[in-house]
Amino acid sequence: MDRTDQNVIDGSALELNPTERTVETVLRVASMALSIASLVIMFKNSISNDFGSLSYSTLGAFKYLVTANGLCATYSLLSAIFVIIIQCPISKLRLWTLFLLDQVVTYAVLAAGTVSAEMLYLAYKGNLNITWSSACDYYGVFCHKALVSAILTFLVCILYVSLSFISSYRIFSRYEAPKQ
Amino acid sequence: MDRTDQNVIDGSALELNPTERTVETVLRVASMALSIASLVIMFKNSISNDFGSLSYSTLGAFKYLVTANGLCATYSLLSAIFVIIIQCPISKLRLWTLFLLDQVVTYAVLAAGTVSAEMLYLAYKGNLNITWSSACDYYGVFCHKALVSAILTFLVCILYVSLSFISSYRIFSRYEAPKQ
Repeated sequence: MDRTDQNVIDGSALELNPTERTVETVLRVASMALSIASLVIMFKNSISNDFGSLSYSTLGAFKYLVTANGLCATYSLLSAIFVIIIQCPISKLRLWTLFLLDQVVTYAVLAAGTVSAEMLYLAYKGNLNITWSSACDYYGVFCHKALVSAILTFLVCILYVSLSFISSYRIFSRYEAPKQ
Repeated sequence: MDRTDQNVIDGSALELNPTERTVETVLRVASMALSIASLVIMFKNSISNDFGSLSYSTLGAFKYLVTANGLCATYSLLSAIFVIIIQCPISKLRLWTLFLLDQVVTYAVLAAGTVSAEMLYLAYKGNLNITWSSACDYYGVFCHKALVSAILTFLVCILYVSLSFISSYRIFSRYEAPKQ
């Protein structure tokens, strides 16, 4: 007998009420939509003018943003399907796996948002001390689109932080310490 | 009667065994030590030569790294004291607060590590497309010290991810769904 079966049998399992299931599905589908929007905006973002040419693939931070959003969109879709079709009671092992994967995706998306924000900060402001000019003076449209993509990534991050908090709160509020 | 008292009375509380208490204290004290080391290295990091002068305060990413490490060191100290002196049984409310604050610090430290890593990546490599030269060709010692500081910050992040996983696993492994 595996641990999942044991959890179901000994009562350490959980029911999801319809409202919870709906809220979680909406959050996951919204994350998927925002991730795809952010990915597409950045993926199609390129500019070519008298100063040169630039695309997302020439900047490491934006390449990572595209990768992380692709990962997040895929996971959001799969986890939304899981939440919709999963039969109750759900074993603790499955809940814990979902919780851990949510955490990993949150970290990955947060990292994508912050490296892109740092890249954009430098691109908009430049830095006189290290003689880096403001690249956005020459590539304005590229920067604006990249900014929109980074903001969408931060929104995805907020949704995933909410999902992590919801799943941890569910455990904290519903489970009790075993009676001695 | 507040919720904390209720949790203790209804049995939804937790004992910490001595090994757990020791492991958690060691992780928190190690995080504090690494955060302080990272903060001090970055805080004292400055260079002045024929090309100009540079210090942590002239670069936004490194200013944020110093702030986040200061916050993390303070929280690590306070939470280590909390774990040492807290009397068992610990209420779920306190455990949840600790868990949530651990999460917030993990996010803050991860963000500090990633923005610094992006800054260093650009400083070492430069970017021809946007005519940014490799600043580390001129400020090598500054870059090396900043790299050490960023690596220490990532180590702190790994310790905090471990702390978050330990505290969530503790809940998942010890608590049971209430019998209907």
